[in-house]
Amino acid sequence: MIEGMTESQLTLHIIKQLKEGKKNHFQKTIDELQPYDIAKIYSSIPAKHRTRFLLFINVEQIADLIQELEKDLQFEALTKLGIEKSGQVMDLMDNDDLASLLEHLSKDKMEELLSGMKKEESKIVQDIMNYPPETAGRLMTNRFVWIKDHYTIRETVEKLKTFAEYSETINYLYVIDQNKHLVGVVSYRDIILANENEKIQDIMYSRVISVTADTDQEEVARLIERYDFLAIPVVDNGVLVGIVTVDDIIDVVISEATEDIEKLSASGKAIDFDTKAYVAAYRRLPWLILLLFIGIVSGTIISQFEETLSTVVALAFFMPMIAGMTGNTGTQSLAVVVRGLITREVDRKTAAQLIFRELKVGLIIGFICGILIALIALVWQGSAVLGLVVGSSLIMTLVIGTLAGTIIPLILYRLNVDPAIASGPLITTLNDIVSLFIYFGMATLFINQLM
Amino acid sequence: MIEGMTESQLTLHIIKQLKEGKKNHFQKTIDELQPYDIAKIYSSIPAKHRTRFLLFINVEQIADLIQELEKDLQFEALTKLGIEKSGQVMDLMDNDDLASLLEHLSKDKMEELLSGMKKEESKIVQDIMNYPPETAGRLMTNRFVWIKDHYTIRETVEKLKTFAEYSETINYLYVIDQNKHLVGVVSYRDIILANENEKIQDIMYSRVISVTADTDQEEVARLIERYDFLAIPVVDNGVLVGIVTVDDIIDVVISEATEDIEKLSASGKAIDFDTKAYVAAYRRLPWLILLLFIGIVSGTIISQFEETLSTVVALAFFMPMIAGMTGNTGTQSLAVVVRGLITREVDRKTAAQLIFRELKVGLIIGFICGILIALIALVWQGSAVLGLVVGSSLIMTLVIGTLAGTIIPLILYRLNVDPAIASGPLITTLNDIVSLFIYFGMATLFINQLM
Repeated sequence: MIEGMTESQLTLHIIKQLKEGKKNHFQKTIDELQPYDIAKIYSSIPAKHRTRFLLFINVEQIADLIQELEKDLQFEALTKLGIEKSGQVMDLMDNDDLASLLEHLSKDKMEELLSGMKKEESKIVQDIMNYPPETAGRLMTNRFVWIKDHYTIRETVEKLKTFAEYSETINYLYVIDQNKHLVGVVSYRDIILANENEKIQDIMYSRVISVTADTDQEEVARLIERYDFLAIPVVDNGVLVGIVTVDDIIDVVISEATEDIEKLSASGKAIDFDTKAYVAAYRRLPWLILLLFIGIVSGTIISQFEETLSTVVALAFFMPMIAGMTGNTGTQSLAVVVRGLITREVDRKTAAQLIFRELKVGLIIGFICGILIALIALVWQGSAVLGLVVGSSLIMTLVIGTLAGTIIPLILYRLNVDPAIASGPLITTLNDIVSLFIYFGMATLFINQLM
Repeated sequence: MIEGMTESQLTLHIIKQLKEGKKNHFQKTIDELQPYDIAKIYSSIPAKHRTRFLLFINVEQIADLIQELEKDLQFEALTKLGIEKSGQVMDLMDNDDLASLLEHLSKDKMEELLSGMKKEESKIVQDIMNYPPETAGRLMTNRFVWIKDHYTIRETVEKLKTFAEYSETINYLYVIDQNKHLVGVVSYRDIILANENEKIQDIMYSRVISVTADTDQEEVARLIERYDFLAIPVVDNGVLVGIVTVDDIIDVVISEATEDIEKLSASGKAIDFDTKAYVAAYRRLPWLILLLFIGIVSGTIISQFEETLSTVVALAFFMPMIAGMTGNTGTQSLAVVVRGLITREVDRKTAAQLIFRELKVGLIIGFICGILIALIALVWQGSAVLGLVVGSSLIMTLVIGTLAGTIIPLILYRLNVDPAIASGPLITTLNDIVSLFIYFGMATLFINQLM
């Protein structure tokens, strides 16, 4: 019945069902929808209908719904439910999602909510929150089924049927021995294809690739991407403690890329379309004020060369071009290094090769652009010496700019600092200063010929 | 036996087995490894051993191996195999991987290779290559099993056993009716949990979310990310023609983010650590040369104000600061818009809200930075008028810079042009020009007071 409906028709349909109190019809509609869509409708209906919305669906559905809501609606919904029911819902939520919801709450509020949960579930969530941010421990879930290596296929299927609700999204079964050590993996497909009496240890794949709870999330993403896995097991001293699933990894990849872009463009942390103006301004200001002072440094450099500049005012015409191009060439190199480091580890040899490559790139673009601008300057201002000064300055600044954009992030990487922190604007500004020095230095050297 | 080996030990072990011709031992070793690791070892051993390597493994393993190799090694391996065996291998490869391998070949070479394949497989690959780049059609594979809606669970399991090799990585089974229309989906887990005699149509989930072959890959990624799917079906007029799997989507997300960064930083298309220096230089030059000419435009503007500048040389001191900050504030806004558009569609209302928000941000940062620089200029140069000129120029340029960085990508988005094309440097340079106009315009206005 709801097949052909557009999103707004569906929303109206649901509001109508809520108003008329048709619980059965309402549940039938909800059954046909994905959690993301249910959450979207829940968020868009008038607030007064939301309580009945929650009353009309079961705890599993509430758990799925809450996982897809925005932070403030999550709290609102949990509060509406009351401590007992919210505990039941939280028991059913993915613990990684629950952990990232709880960590934004005050300690009191968090403990209140945790108190409604089953003891063991509450402990698992609290354990997850103890792992450092951006590690496998924070992403992992315990919603998976483990099996023992001596099980037969028949026993395995029995266990699967018992734990059906726990194995919802996972497509591998991890195999443990009597010490709970991870010893193998089988897929659902293997189970379907195998004979009922075969033993798991005979059909399992035993060279399992796993991570530890403190493995960085970028490394986890790299492994899942490399091996095309749907999930990867997390072990602690050989003992299986959880799994990280591919859907979390997609979110990691997106947020890591966004972070890189934020840093490269110094656009401020976590600003999206919904961020309030004063918050966005507050997050961007630190960088802009730093930039302002660095700009004053540039100004001081120029003021040192005031005499040169007032003697040959035409020098000012080429200032933005030289500073702009040097800054840009640095950002170009920086972007190549930062993105390259995502998919690849860099040793001393690779770093040396890269620096040498960028040196050559700098020389090539330096000479081409330098000669071009020298000719333009000669034609425009009719001075060969000015052409020489501008052209040779540009060659030098482009080579230095390229190298700075390559070497600085590599040094940061070696020091285990995120190379993207050497954001585009920082490199740009550094290169600005260097280029002004070189340009006015050259000009002062040739001042007699320029006059 | 190979459990505890490091990568280089493993490589030596494999070379030894190849030299000694121990085919059985060699196969046992390979069986324990992931395709990615096998490919890494294959690539790192001396070229003379590679032929025997290929002889020692079966066609399925060769297919898996080739999918993980670099382009040049892929061709080398296919050539080594000879036309008949390479046809068998290509029949087994994922058609999307095969298509992206073939499209880099000359037409003759491609037809030669295709001629060794089974007719229907060869046709499927050629069909894929006919879809526009970066669409679902290019990413989809036909390595999946469909089932009919009237099948029982028992019949389904029978079919699965027959088509075992085709269903390797997929965890959903797509259900079609007698017209081959996609009507539902079930997971392997559903099959395991269901009773043998139940019918697929009774347990299947029928509100299937699907894409068409010409859906943009970013849209496909958005759906898979949103719904946490492991695969999404591709239909053509309702008929199921293939599926896109989550592992391809991770690659899409990474490459789209890299593209955004490349464009935002104008770092040149597809430059990685292995790109040759002259190629990298060639790819970066167009932008730099464009930037050079835009720089000349800036220069021309300054030259228009030569008289103002030579009267008050101190104006030059604040030039880099004003241009730099205006450029940067534009890039900040741009980055927020470009990343925001990835996870969200923007309608007229959202766009208006965003522009209004950024206007407020521009005003806040403009007034704070403007007043700050006015005070600095007053103290440093001892001129209240200079402070006023610099400060009020900065307020104006920061507001305009912020708006330009917001509105330009939104217009491009509306025109269906990739907003990231309004790369950071372009916005920066545009803002440079505008800021110079405003700054020198203001200065000329107050020239009598400045003298």
